[in-house]
Amino acid sequence: MASLNKEELSNLSFVLKKPLEVAFEDRPKPSLASPHDVLVAVNYTGICGSDVHYWLHGAIGHFVVKDPMVLGHESAGTVVEVGDAVKTLAVGDKVALEPGYPCRRCAPCLAGKYNLCPEMAFAATPPYDGTLTGLWSSPADFCYKLPATVSLQEGALIEPLAVAVHIVRQASVTPGQSVVVMGAGPVGLLCAAVAKAHGASTIVSVDIVQSKLDFAADFAATHTYASQRIPAADNAKAIRELAGFPDGVDVVIDASGAEPSIQAAIHTVRMGGTYVQGGMGKPDITFPIMAMCLKEVTVKGSFRYGPGDYRLAVELVAAGKVDVKKLVTSVVSFGQAEEAFKKVKEGEAIKVLIAGPNEKI
Amino acid sequence: MASLNKEELSNLSFVLKKPLEVAFEDRPKPSLASPHDVLVAVNYTGICGSDVHYWLHGAIGHFVVKDPMVLGHESAGTVVEVGDAVKTLAVGDKVALEPGYPCRRCAPCLAGKYNLCPEMAFAATPPYDGTLTGLWSSPADFCYKLPATVSLQEGALIEPLAVAVHIVRQASVTPGQSVVVMGAGPVGLLCAAVAKAHGASTIVSVDIVQSKLDFAADFAATHTYASQRIPAADNAKAIRELAGFPDGVDVVIDASGAEPSIQAAIHTVRMGGTYVQGGMGKPDITFPIMAMCLKEVTVKGSFRYGPGDYRLAVELVAAGKVDVKKLVTSVVSFGQAEEAFKKVKEGEAIKVLIAGPNEKI
Amino acid sequence: MASLNKEELSNLSFVLKKPLEVAFEDRPKPSLASPHDVLVAVNYTGICGSDVHYWLHGAIGHFVVKDPMVLGHESAGTVVEVGDAVKTLAVGDKVALEPGYPCRRCAPCLAGKYNLCPEMAFAATPPYDGTLTGLWSSPADFCYKLPATVSLQEGALIEPLAVAVHIVRQASVTPGQSVVVMGAGPVGLLCAAVAKAHGASTIVSVDIVQSKLDFAADFAATHTYASQRIPAADNAKAIRELAGFPDGVDVVIDASGAEPSIQAAIHTVRMGGTYVQGGMGKPDITFPIMAMCLKEVTVKGSFRYGPGDYRLAVELVAAGKVDVKKLVTSVVSFGQAEEAFKKVKEGEAIKVLIAGPNEKI
Amino acid sequence: MASLNKEELSNLSFVLKKPLEVAFEDRPKPSLASPHDVLVAVNYTGICGSDVHYWLHGAIGHFVVKDPMVLGHESAGTVVEVGDAVKTLAVGDKVALEPGYPCRRCAPCLAGKYNLCPEMAFAATPPYDGTLTGLWSSPADFCYKLPATVSLQEGALIEPLAVAVHIVRQASVTPGQSVVVMGAGPVGLLCAAVAKAHGASTIVSVDIVQSKLDFAADFAATHTYASQRIPAADNAKAIRELAGFPDGVDVVIDASGAEPSIQAAIHTVRMGGTYVQGGMGKPDITFPIMAMCLKEVTVKGSFRYGPGDYRLAVELVAAGKVDVKKLVTSVVSFGQAEEAFKKVKEGEAIKVLIAGPNEKI
Repeated sequence: MASLNKEELSNLSFVLKKPLEVAFEDRPKPSLASPHDVLVAVNYTGICGSDVHYWLHGAIGHFVVKDPMVLGHESAGTVVEVGDAVKTLAVGDKVALEPGYPCRRCAPCLAGKYNLCPEMAFAATPPYDGTLTGLWSSPADFCYKLPATVSLQEGALIEPLAVAVHIVRQASVTPGQSVVVMGAGPVGLLCAAVAKAHGASTIVSVDIVQSKLDFAADFAATHTYASQRIPAADNAKAIRELAGFPDGVDVVIDASGAEPSIQAAIHTVRMGGTYVQGGMGKPDITFPIMAMCLKEVTVKGSFRYGPGDYRLAVELVAAGKVDVKKLVTSVVSFGQAEEAFKKVKEGEAIKVLIAGPNEKI
Repeated sequence: MASLNKEELSNLSFVLKKPLEVAFEDRPKPSLASPHDVLVAVNYTGICGSDVHYWLHGAIGHFVVKDPMVLGHESAGTVVEVGDAVKTLAVGDKVALEPGYPCRRCAPCLAGKYNLCPEMAFAATPPYDGTLTGLWSSPADFCYKLPATVSLQEGALIEPLAVAVHIVRQASVTPGQSVVVMGAGPVGLLCAAVAKAHGASTIVSVDIVQSKLDFAADFAATHTYASQRIPAADNAKAIRELAGFPDGVDVVIDASGAEPSIQAAIHTVRMGGTYVQGGMGKPDITFPIMAMCLKEVTVKGSFRYGPGDYRLAVELVAAGKVDVKKLVTSVVSFGQAEEAFKKVKEGEAIKVLIAGPNEKI
Repeated sequence: MASLNKEELSNLSFVLKKPLEVAFEDRPKPSLASPHDVLVAVNYTGICGSDVHYWLHGAIGHFVVKDPMVLGHESAGTVVEVGDAVKTLAVGDKVALEPGYPCRRCAPCLAGKYNLCPEMAFAATPPYDGTLTGLWSSPADFCYKLPATVSLQEGALIEPLAVAVHIVRQASVTPGQSVVVMGAGPVGLLCAAVAKAHGASTIVSVDIVQSKLDFAADFAATHTYASQRIPAADNAKAIRELAGFPDGVDVVIDASGAEPSIQAAIHTVRMGGTYVQGGMGKPDITFPIMAMCLKEVTVKGSFRYGPGDYRLAVELVAAGKVDVKKLVTSVVSFGQAEEAFKKVKEGEAIKVLIAGPNEKI
Repeated sequence: MASLNKEELSNLSFVLKKPLEVAFEDRPKPSLASPHDVLVAVNYTGICGSDVHYWLHGAIGHFVVKDPMVLGHESAGTVVEVGDAVKTLAVGDKVALEPGYPCRRCAPCLAGKYNLCPEMAFAATPPYDGTLTGLWSSPADFCYKLPATVSLQEGALIEPLAVAVHIVRQASVTPGQSVVVMGAGPVGLLCAAVAKAHGASTIVSVDIVQSKLDFAADFAATHTYASQRIPAADNAKAIRELAGFPDGVDVVIDASGAEPSIQAAIHTVRMGGTYVQGGMGKPDITFPIMAMCLKEVTVKGSFRYGPGDYRLAVELVAAGKVDVKKLVTSVVSFGQAEEAFKKVKEGEAIKVLIAGPNEKI
């Protein structure tokens, strides 16, 4: 960051006006809304599938972009201003940004489930602006200081890593377990790595694209399986045997959202095992409910991230347990943001980072 | 029981030969297979939906009746012989019979999940004979002594009550919670009562038959809802509002197995709530997987019963917290067993008990 | 409440100046500090052992009263002003006051353990003033609306009931369990009642005062035991046998803080059972650590109350499951506050309520 | 093993006659007591502190050696005979022996807590003989097949590793946590390594012997602390600061049994943290009960090992996550067993292995 002076920093923002129509706007610089807040100059932002989906369609489910909205929510930045009540951060600190702010007062918030807060203000989810901007104001407790050994580019990958941490924690993976991860996109890859960091000894990555599986094998998986166009139960049988657990594996995670994967998942998990739905896809699917019931599978949904997830994500990168750098296909300047979105849409990249408007690359 | 002398007791058994073809057979009297076993003269046996299903179709899923099989598994009896190693039971004790015997050596057994034992020998599940017989040999630790205040007819209802106990425990119902139970057959009714015994303060029974709902309101439910032929989400909305929890209830239990009920259930449970599948139905259904995921619902299957479930079931009856007697529509003699099956099939009864061949009624 | 107009209400407060020296002071009326707050006119306040301890000694442990401090923290009141952001309460609502306000931003707060917040501002714990005052400002989410069927005097007992709810929840009491409660003071009595509401079937109250045990037997206990001046292991043996569980009970709760009780507790609990420390006493005691270890007892501390505890406490009173009215020995006017403290100190009362300065009795 | 023929193998046993009096006896060769059993020729046995204690004192607590008893319980061996019902093992398989056999029928056994079985038959705990013998008969499900990559000497260390696995599981250590282990004897060292395998990022080993701490630093600890003769709270403060967690660490494990360590432990753990008692020592100690209570510490005992612990221990060795070989100070022949006991008593060794009487070294 060339400067830590708010006055010298731009607040240029990458704004979605309507589907496929974006613009760069010089937005007013934000001020601290509370003495508990900090102002952060954004250094890098990763592009997420949801960003691309809003760009293409202007909506995800019942979240519809009605007014122009800044995109982006996977960011790291540098603190440039600190509220009076903040004790944990100082100007110049590098931080990963947790981009959703709960109300802190509802029953889920008080009970430690703030990701379920009905009043959550989440970046780049309408009507809230995102982080593809110059300056971002955040409560200090949703900024996570990066140790000296973790770069700001790695910091921008803490967000998808926290998604994976939350999923794997929902699955309560413990040492020695066998884990199958459906899908080898960014979140699926990170789930495999986080499962490994939890001590899983068998980790099978499943996808339909062989190149993704090759990457997974290098990244974290002990086995890979290329899904076939055969009945889900047959794919499941092949996965169980490949894993060395013909009676079923301890944990299956879906990071694909694809119907055939979810079906195969239930037939892959063992009696009394755990299945976590992390991927997003069709709202309703054909689901093997009786297999789930008779095996007493525990099924859990996973939505974003909650208390401690970001902290562990930073820790895993700092400890060298998850090498997020490997996921970065390319880094582009802020002015190339639209081209970057196109590249991600084409499926030519695992993860593209966009530098902030004040960041030279 | 007229006699506690094995020699004086009949072992007449009610045997399914093939679909809709049954016979009374005088089977050889069993001997104790282990010093840990007891011999029990069966006093009463309830008819379960699965008994009726075998009688009608000769199979449930991949369990197929190939050889003649004695029916029945919901029984209470009187101890007539005690193995040398048994310290907890004596001749003359009245007991509820837990009718499934696990291997005690596999991983699920050792880990306290014996209901998931792959070598389970379960009464009236092929190839194992059931309890509609005169004498039944069982490990002593699967016989539960009935206190003086609990009758043998109540004892025969401990089995379905244990099913409900297991379901409600899978749901971890705690005091003050709101619980919706889909289905008001015997297990659904018992789930409502067990949820109440766990301190649930709002209990909604849901069914399509008004007379069942009337019974439920008298038995345990605080509210009842007659399902309409409308979209599942609309039934769910109506249930939430009736319950007084427009944002969703803490726990939903399905004791119906019906696709529309399961769909409505997921739309009825709150963010972070729990859903337990207790009912049996179609193997695959259309399931609102994204609603489950985004609300981080915990979904669990429930299969039969495990450690402590029978014990609590006996306790709940003894403490007067579940009045199982109310479920008994009629009690018939052993010779009327086939008529009793017909009556249950016709839906004219909640629960019919068949007296053992040595029991006069 | 004669008036709901802040201007017409007194803010007379009962202030501890130094040990045994109290005064009535007309303090300035508080204003809402946040749009999320409400102003409550206090109707009734119960006296807690900690209030008496501050009055007598000016300190509890390292909490020392340095400046004059308003006493009291067990209160119910009537809403007289509502902040702009408050949607859940209206002027005139009767509420139970949860008297501790956490920071909402530290790791324990975010993780759903706000009772462990290191920045907790707790009423009548120095340097924070208490609720023996006319008007009290509170975040709306720490005020719990009382249903029409729950009186304001009952509302003042929600605080100690919430203490008991938290203890029993720490113990995870489930239906059918055997529970022993050491101590039959207000919290011990309420623990017994809350354990009953959780479905415990055997509840033994233990104390050294027979009259307290008589009260306990009437209130919630199924058995009572008068502790003898004998070794702890001998008292424990007698309790186990009285309870009907010679091998030990499922759960033991200490609500006494007394060393002999805690020792007996560990010898009373079964293999794999649970012990919760709820009572306050000497900082260090002689403790049977090896018995705890070899039996794999789970030992938990319990401190104040957390998410959902107040809500359940209100629910239990509303549902008639805990009859807190029975604990009220007398109700006195605000002017008699000092006499009330003397009475509690003498041990002549279970619970004395002091009316607020605006309340006629 | 020179032979897999029972007839050719010796059953020479190392027998404790009375304190400090041992003898080699040629005991009758055992036969399979059940078709579920296997016969194992013992290859290596480690010496445990409890073996030494029986040898020196003839008793541990209320366990008193009245009749001559074979010592030893940390063993690995080779299967030489297989019962008819055994499907999981074959003659020639190398196995780690889990040396305690529960009844499989009591409430703890059925509930998955077989280590709490009151009828447990545990090797070298009177009146049961131990494994310093030639041939050992065991239920097959208590023998754990060693993969080809795990040696029989490593196999003899699975027992103490399983003790550590059980302790760390009782503590529910998860990735990123800070863990302090009191004591750097064999079990303390293994706890540190198992905590690391669970993903703990800060692991502090504490002892009074510097050479043990040096070993710990090489084996698994990220930090070491030499306990001082100062008040427990002061040692605790120093440990917290060394660890980088001045407000307390997530988990403290005691593997020392020493009173000052246990006291320091409670002052070292954070608000809401977990403490596990793994070490054995004095039955009663002075314990900071109020610190435990006010911080809501979860305290757990840990006793031996239960379902899955041995399996994970083998897995951790096979995966290279715990290098148990490093703990082996020396390996001696069966004839040198008494000398080996003397050496362990003198504290000159971490772990000494005694070869079986049929094993040449």
